[in-house]
Amino acid sequence: MKITREKAAENRQVLVETAARLFREKGIDGVGVAEISKAAGLTHGALYAHFPSKDALAAEAMQFSTRSAYGKVTEHPVTLAQLVDYYLAPEQRDNLAQGCPLAAAASEVARQDASVGAGYTSGFRQMVEYISQQLPAGEGQRQQALAVMAALVGGISVSRNVYKTDPELADEVLESMRSMLLKLS
Amino acid sequence: MKITREKAAENRQVLVETAARLFREKGIDGVGVAEISKAAGLTHGALYAHFPSKDALAAEAMQFSTRSAYGKVTEHPVTLAQLVDYYLAPEQRDNLAQGCPLAAAASEVARQDASVGAGYTSGFRQMVEYISQQLPAGEGQRQQALAVMAALVGGISVSRNVYKTDPELADEVLESMRSMLLKLS
Repeated sequence: MKITREKAAENRQVLVETAARLFREKGIDGVGVAEISKAAGLTHGALYAHFPSKDALAAEAMQFSTRSAYGKVTEHPVTLAQLVDYYLAPEQRDNLAQGCPLAAAASEVARQDASVGAGYTSGFRQMVEYISQQLPAGEGQRQQALAVMAALVGGISVSRNVYKTDPELADEVLESMRSMLLKLS
Repeated sequence: MKITREKAAENRQVLVETAARLFREKGIDGVGVAEISKAAGLTHGALYAHFPSKDALAAEAMQFSTRSAYGKVTEHPVTLAQLVDYYLAPEQRDNLAQGCPLAAAASEVARQDASVGAGYTSGFRQMVEYISQQLPAGEGQRQQALAVMAALVGGISVSRNVYKTDPELADEVLESMRSMLLKLS
């Protein structure tokens, strides 16, 4: 079936958005291209017409999700305290599919193709740059921002992992990380 | 083939240790029971004689790896600074298969069976207790230990994820996290 250029572009975008959501929800190794095409309402063949491999789709999904997460965070100007509160909210922890891609793939990207890591790295750099601007000016500002962003990823990840066993501990992790990071600002 | 009770116990242990290594190296969803049995030098059937499901094996592997990582860390008494240096060393980052299980599965445990999360949670609690003892006594000591352990997980995870794209940035993440955490001790 011949489709228009517009329809093809639209299909491509639906595939990327669906993949970005499912990779976060189920893990990059936890979902295959068959499931992604189905969830996007397309065929396996349609997916391969746009992406030569799962790696290619994962790389583009990572770029898309880091860009859109950054857009959401920076939509309104925020202080570091507001950013930390937003990032470490229990609702973020409980919303894997729409949450921060840097945390959703925390232990997976190192095992994936370098192209997936490239999207992750550029998303991380962008967030570090943003956090750096919210920190008190001075030497070591960028270093502090690097540590803050990595600590946020750790806080939300660990909280997610202990949640099923001990929801109270999971909340304590978020709250403790919040306190530690707010002492910096 | 009938095997002795001793041999059966030995096979079980080899399966757990092999799974603990492969799950960290390849991810819990990145390796199947067929590959684990093969790497352990056993048959698929031998694995199922000991573990009714992959979840059961993953739960036991998580318990084993958190216990042995805890044993390694606490073998010799250390200060918080020494612990942080050890944990955030580039060699730890580059050794996924033998590294900290809390980091190796940072974004995976929340998606696994609750039994896997139980092992993770008890390993996390144990490390928090240990870190708490190294911190200056006072109110908020446990809270600080929670944040430190989660931040360590974030530091090593993010460093791993950006390493292929930007090894210099990966080192900077470790160094920045180290500086931030050492200010607490």
